[in-house]
Amino acid sequence: VKRHRKKKGEVPSAKARAFPKRFSPPGSAPGTLILDPRLMAAPPKLRVIDYDDEKIEEVEMASLERCRASIKDPSITWVHVQGHAEPDTLRALGEMFELHPLALEDVINRGQQPKFELYGEDFFTIFAVPRLVGDLLTIEQVCLFLGSNYVVSFYAGEEDLFEPVRKRLTAPNQKFRKHGADYLFYALADLAVDQGFPVLEQIGDSIDEIEVSLTEGIDQQLLHRIHLLKRHVIQLRRFLWPQREVCAALLRDDFGKFHDEVKIHLRDCTDHAVQLLDLAENYREMCSSLLEVYLSTVSNRLNDVMRVLTVISTIFIPLSFFVGVYGMNFDYMPELHMKLGYPAVWVVIFTTAISMLIFFRKRGWI
Amino acid sequence: VKRHRKKKGEVPSAKARAFPKRFSPPGSAPGTLILDPRLMAAPPKLRVIDYDDEKIEEVEMASLERCRASIKDPSITWVHVQGHAEPDTLRALGEMFELHPLALEDVINRGQQPKFELYGEDFFTIFAVPRLVGDLLTIEQVCLFLGSNYVVSFYAGEEDLFEPVRKRLTAPNQKFRKHGADYLFYALADLAVDQGFPVLEQIGDSIDEIEVSLTEGIDQQLLHRIHLLKRHVIQLRRFLWPQREVCAALLRDDFGKFHDEVKIHLRDCTDHAVQLLDLAENYREMCSSLLEVYLSTVSNRLNDVMRVLTVISTIFIPLSFFVGVYGMNFDYMPELHMKLGYPAVWVVIFTTAISMLIFFRKRGWI
Amino acid sequence: VKRHRKKKGEVPSAKARAFPKRFSPPGSAPGTLILDPRLMAAPPKLRVIDYDDEKIEEVEMASLERCRASIKDPSITWVHVQGHAEPDTLRALGEMFELHPLALEDVINRGQQPKFELYGEDFFTIFAVPRLVGDLLTIEQVCLFLGSNYVVSFYAGEEDLFEPVRKRLTAPNQKFRKHGADYLFYALADLAVDQGFPVLEQIGDSIDEIEVSLTEGIDQQLLHRIHLLKRHVIQLRRFLWPQREVCAALLRDDFGKFHDEVKIHLRDCTDHAVQLLDLAENYREMCSSLLEVYLSTVSNRLNDVMRVLTVISTIFIPLSFFVGVYGMNFDYMPELHMKLGYPAVWVVIFTTAISMLIFFRKRGWI
Amino acid sequence: VKRHRKKKGEVPSAKARAFPKRFSPPGSAPGTLILDPRLMAAPPKLRVIDYDDEKIEEVEMASLERCRASIKDPSITWVHVQGHAEPDTLRALGEMFELHPLALEDVINRGQQPKFELYGEDFFTIFAVPRLVGDLLTIEQVCLFLGSNYVVSFYAGEEDLFEPVRKRLTAPNQKFRKHGADYLFYALADLAVDQGFPVLEQIGDSIDEIEVSLTEGIDQQLLHRIHLLKRHVIQLRRFLWPQREVCAALLRDDFGKFHDEVKIHLRDCTDHAVQLLDLAENYREMCSSLLEVYLSTVSNRLNDVMRVLTVISTIFIPLSFFVGVYGMNFDYMPELHMKLGYPAVWVVIFTTAISMLIFFRKRGWI
Amino acid sequence: VKRHRKKKGEVPSAKARAFPKRFSPPGSAPGTLILDPRLMAAPPKLRVIDYDDEKIEEVEMASLERCRASIKDPSITWVHVQGHAEPDTLRALGEMFELHPLALEDVINRGQQPKFELYGEDFFTIFAVPRLVGDLLTIEQVCLFLGSNYVVSFYAGEEDLFEPVRKRLTAPNQKFRKHGADYLFYALADLAVDQGFPVLEQIGDSIDEIEVSLTEGIDQQLLHRIHLLKRHVIQLRRFLWPQREVCAALLRDDFGKFHDEVKIHLRDCTDHAVQLLDLAENYREMCSSLLEVYLSTVSNRLNDVMRVLTVISTIFIPLSFFVGVYGMNFDYMPELHMKLGYPAVWVVIFTTAISMLIFFRKRGWI
Repeated sequence: VKRHRKKKGEVPSAKARAFPKRFSPPGSAPGTLILDPRLMAAPPKLRVIDYDDEKIEEVEMASLERCRASIKDPSITWVHVQGHAEPDTLRALGEMFELHPLALEDVINRGQQPKFELYGEDFFTIFAVPRLVGDLLTIEQVCLFLGSNYVVSFYAGEEDLFEPVRKRLTAPNQKFRKHGADYLFYALADLAVDQGFPVLEQIGDSIDEIEVSLTEGIDQQLLHRIHLLKRHVIQLRRFLWPQREVCAALLRDDFGKFHDEVKIHLRDCTDHAVQLLDLAENYREMCSSLLEVYLSTVSNRLNDVMRVLTVISTIFIPLSFFVGVYGMNFDYMPELHMKLGYPAVWVVIFTTAISMLIFFRKRGWI
Repeated sequence: VKRHRKKKGEVPSAKARAFPKRFSPPGSAPGTLILDPRLMAAPPKLRVIDYDDEKIEEVEMASLERCRASIKDPSITWVHVQGHAEPDTLRALGEMFELHPLALEDVINRGQQPKFELYGEDFFTIFAVPRLVGDLLTIEQVCLFLGSNYVVSFYAGEEDLFEPVRKRLTAPNQKFRKHGADYLFYALADLAVDQGFPVLEQIGDSIDEIEVSLTEGIDQQLLHRIHLLKRHVIQLRRFLWPQREVCAALLRDDFGKFHDEVKIHLRDCTDHAVQLLDLAENYREMCSSLLEVYLSTVSNRLNDVMRVLTVISTIFIPLSFFVGVYGMNFDYMPELHMKLGYPAVWVVIFTTAISMLIFFRKRGWI
Repeated sequence: VKRHRKKKGEVPSAKARAFPKRFSPPGSAPGTLILDPRLMAAPPKLRVIDYDDEKIEEVEMASLERCRASIKDPSITWVHVQGHAEPDTLRALGEMFELHPLALEDVINRGQQPKFELYGEDFFTIFAVPRLVGDLLTIEQVCLFLGSNYVVSFYAGEEDLFEPVRKRLTAPNQKFRKHGADYLFYALADLAVDQGFPVLEQIGDSIDEIEVSLTEGIDQQLLHRIHLLKRHVIQLRRFLWPQREVCAALLRDDFGKFHDEVKIHLRDCTDHAVQLLDLAENYREMCSSLLEVYLSTVSNRLNDVMRVLTVISTIFIPLSFFVGVYGMNFDYMPELHMKLGYPAVWVVIFTTAISMLIFFRKRGWI
Repeated sequence: VKRHRKKKGEVPSAKARAFPKRFSPPGSAPGTLILDPRLMAAPPKLRVIDYDDEKIEEVEMASLERCRASIKDPSITWVHVQGHAEPDTLRALGEMFELHPLALEDVINRGQQPKFELYGEDFFTIFAVPRLVGDLLTIEQVCLFLGSNYVVSFYAGEEDLFEPVRKRLTAPNQKFRKHGADYLFYALADLAVDQGFPVLEQIGDSIDEIEVSLTEGIDQQLLHRIHLLKRHVIQLRRFLWPQREVCAALLRDDFGKFHDEVKIHLRDCTDHAVQLLDLAENYREMCSSLLEVYLSTVSNRLNDVMRVLTVISTIFIPLSFFVGVYGMNFDYMPELHMKLGYPAVWVVIFTTAISMLIFFRKRGWI
Repeated sequence: VKRHRKKKGEVPSAKARAFPKRFSPPGSAPGTLILDPRLMAAPPKLRVIDYDDEKIEEVEMASLERCRASIKDPSITWVHVQGHAEPDTLRALGEMFELHPLALEDVINRGQQPKFELYGEDFFTIFAVPRLVGDLLTIEQVCLFLGSNYVVSFYAGEEDLFEPVRKRLTAPNQKFRKHGADYLFYALADLAVDQGFPVLEQIGDSIDEIEVSLTEGIDQQLLHRIHLLKRHVIQLRRFLWPQREVCAALLRDDFGKFHDEVKIHLRDCTDHAVQLLDLAENYREMCSSLLEVYLSTVSNRLNDVMRVLTVISTIFIPLSFFVGVYGMNFDYMPELHMKLGYPAVWVVIFTTAISMLIFFRKRGWI
């Protein structure tokens, strides 16, 4: 609740565009690698992990040469590129691991929808990692290449997304290292997919908050929050739909890359992808319902306001007319000279007012 | 009707979130069993029933050892765990019956959507058991494992859900015990699915109540009740959709577990699941329709209020002006000194008022 | 039009719940036959017709023994049970014709959605027969069992639904009797399906009526009629959807029960089921559109009312102020003593009023 | 534009019911031919065209005998029945060309949805021909039977629908006559399908007109026009959906009736059917959008009206009170006797009025 | 933002009809080529490019004879017709390349939806190229014929759409020329599909702008902009749907025209088509949401206005009545002669006003 309180004064910014110019200019050659110049600031970090059943070796700031050495090794190699990869690095990695230029183009043009592509034997997938900070929803992409004995992963966000997997991998006596590269791939995919839960949790909390707020009182601010929420859900859904498809395609495994045990785990991962999409669909409907409730509440309040105005006006406007009558300056107004004229006026006034009030109460207006 | 009357004053709480943090933290190892610490209070109860065509044996508070003994027995074994199972108990049962760790993770992380998973020969299903108490909709899960000659069931709710099945099982001369474990599985699944009917019945009653209320008068309270109802239906539907899929998957029986007679019964169960979903879809549309009627009614009432205000104002405001004219203090106002001035004013007033009233009646405003 | 006129005063009752507690209590044994005690009043009537190409024999109030005799006969037997069948009668018929207990449970639990079930060689279908009397939509079920040379039909409504078929059957020189039991089944199914047309015709008429009413004037009553109509259509659709499926399943005839000539007729029947559903979908959209028009009309009328109020108020409120000024009692108000003061006031008043009127006309308000 | 101008005064009639009692009474024997008695007026005209590659022969008012003669002829025969065919004529034609009684029932019961039925070798299709005259949308049906070397066509509308085809057929040196009966069938179907374009064109024009009107000003009339348009589109869609299915079924040609060249042409025809449906869907969405714009515009105008009322009232009501104070007749009111009292009142009045105006301008109300 | 500012005064024109009479008159012979007479102005330009791995030859204003010469050449030939092709040119090209008359009819009847047609070995596709200039959305079509070693392309727009492809083709050392005609076809299709991105980018920007505007203030103008935007999105979607189908059909490649490498690139193109459609769907939902926010904002503002009116009126109307009472001219009004009468009136006035203000503050109205 606090999070939103402090922003009460300002209007929530609508700058939640999730797609910062993510297409190459129409007509450019396929596989063109151009990095958005605004993103050149921090150089990407390469991290190489080599492991098999018995040993594990991790190099945090690896050079391209180090990578090349690892591939020849029969052990499983995981190369992770953190941050915005420069075209040169990408090209070098592409040659080393035989990654398709069209896939590399997708790596560098961020904001892609989740997808699954098979290039020869190996395959390439993109998953979406949403983050909701304040009112800003950003959707980063995780790119995973799975080869016979290596995984290459790209993540352009800032935080160290894959730390939990690394921890499990380097922990002693882990069964993890007994599995092949496909299990590593699964672990990374599962981690990426599960990132959606905290974001949907946040959105669910916001919906609850707004529901409570709606019963307390409404303002324009609330309207913009509901709209923003709906927008977030619409954007999320756009990424969760194809993500479900990607998981389903992996599970189908028409290409025989996954061992049976890993397939059972992938089923779990697909299940999560389906649940995320489901939740998003649910929240979208709830946002629509909130908007309707908002609109109805506004109408209700207008009704309240108008009822008060009407009650006051319909009581006093006739009375004003009445006293106006005896404010006229005609020479011959017999009532004015009667002794009981003035009290009689008060009697009429009270009678009128009281019968009006009774009428309004019967109509349920007061 | 009474149920809602007493809550007239307070706003219905919106705390109907059906999913209390139901995911393991992203990146945790698959199959991790962590029980929500808030739920440790009451230890779960194990109940073991061993039966075949001739005999039946029931142990209400069974130990794990008792379970182990039952399995070896060729008779059909039904182990039911009531309440929140501790990770240790789960792991022990998992080893005994060879339940998959991912399935056990689903058992402990409550709030899962209905699902159907095949692990080797055996399979695992989750069904949703909704309960609507006052304004709070909770959805508990029933987990069922079906093996060659055993059924393991978990139910985290408080009431003794499976009592009717136990009664039918222990009754003398029952044909029930002549069937195999698949029939027991069907009986439990059918019972779980049918739990949806009373809840939808409640919701249907609420819709009827609200419809009647809408013809009588409206308030903000009613709006929140409609919204809450819609929310309930949206949530229910989220669980009824996959439940239908689960039933359909069981009916397809690609794995040859069910006898023909049981399949006919499963068809009946699937039919119920379809009807539940259908009803929920229906109710959702009706809730939307109710909201529209609510909004229209609010508009109608505003119209009524404004019509009264307008009639009163348009009659008396001109008249007030008129008598105001003769309240002016100009030295030379010939009308003031005419003998018939005052009566003439009254004539004008009545003529105006009456022609106004005629005008309004012609417009249909009074 | 007349039908609705007489109800102008009262609010249309919303008691159109089409499903009176139509499920057995959760957990009861499958195939349990319990008749709703409210329905025991009138005992059901059995009617047996035996026919082949050459002869026809009809017994109106047949005993169970008579039925049993008919079955053994190689001619085609049609047993029709009119009214609420008692469990005992049902069980007896079930044994005679080898009807499945689950099917009999559906016969006794009225309000089932249309369905099609195959039990061994024979099959069982339910069709929905809607009736719209005043504001009350009831949906009765017709149950049909088709065996090798018999048809068993159940209808719980009051009227003699199948009279037209009986007439065609008993008419001399009919080709009807040359066909087998499958043709009889088709004739009954077709009759049941076609019952939907008059009801949708009624609804279509109501939509037309309401459309005309909307152009004439609106009240709260009209709103409730639109809502009721929409509700009827939603309920109907709930039964027409599965009915279409049933017809399509019959037409597919995976079980080889129907002769080619009968299949051509079934195609016609399916066509009608599709048209009914189509019409219902259409009417639902029209109801939504009507609601929108209603809402817009209410807004329009509010606008009209407010325009009148505004015109009157904005003309006379400033004028009232103006004459109020010269009603003040200051000692030194030079205007009051000018000879032309009073006429000047009138000039100002008329000028103001007329320029206001011109302003309003330009805005299009009068 | 002109078309609608002249109707400004009257409300557009809603009598666009497209289905005039188009079902036989439930329970009547299948294949019953009863002509709606209102339609008996004009007898139908038979037109027979016999052609092959070399010769063509056309008889405008053919007798049934002439038809019979044509069939035996190996050349291609096209029999066209214009107007409402009497049951006797239908039966005679049915016998001649072996048309199925159920198909003939569809011919006589007008208002059928487009359909495609295969009877043995030959087939029967219905297409919908919409006409929009003023506010009245009528949907006539074209029935086509295609046999090995004949086409029988029925059209109940008044105009000579198939004239363009006849012209192409009788033109000298036409390639048309080199094709078989399937090409004639295609030409007729294509003509029938294309009839939808002008109607949708009209509807599109109306949408444009209404859009322009909405920017100019609104009235109740406009609301009814939008509603009527939406209704038309909903009705059209109801016929265009199955028409697309019919075209798709013809294209699939599971029955091997069409030559390859004709199939390519049928693809074009199907394409048109799809485009029609697409346009109708589009227009439906636009109508919904128009309704929303209408509603928003009404709200906007209400806002304008209320703003004027509020500005005038809030300026003058306090001032009226103020001058009212000095209209009181108390003996001891010192201000009344001050020399500067009256000018001071005017100063106060102007100050108040001007500060109010500034306040309103800041709020953006004036 | 600037773009729209200058149009503030005028209402955005609704002349965005995307289909200028694009059907031949119903009943005209298939393959009739009639050019819309309004379009005859500028003659089309033929551009012929002949290339293979080693050489490239480009003729900018080619004659039909030049084309004919190119075809016989075994190198790859690309004929591009820019502008509105005359029927004669079309027919000549049709004969040269054996293009089907029905396809040529689609080329000349602009405004076709994207489609894919196979004629014998070769195939024909239409893609949609949207342009959004100011408020006018136009959708031009690109027609592509792919033969064994040629591509014929038509584009009726004014700009030189395919310049980027030509540049890549004529650049030295390009791998482009190593591929076959299928790659050229892909490059043109990809370019055509990608034209959608800038338009959707514009629409996305407009949505953002409007969102910001909605928080600042609203007017009728904004309403029409939202409606126009929605209309644009609806129209776009109508073309993007079939375009996705076309891409999917190309990718399926049931006819074995594409090399494996080209298929990988086509996958990328299909991916873009899907993303475009997705974005359009997204934007449509956002437009709906904007309309709801607009409507809610209007209601909110009405509320604000009414609250001010109500507060002012309910304070001053009773007070006016009160001072009116003492403006009456009765002879016997004892209060008028009391010394403290006048101050007492002021006390009453202030007390009333202040308690009213407190009441309104408690209600949250001020």
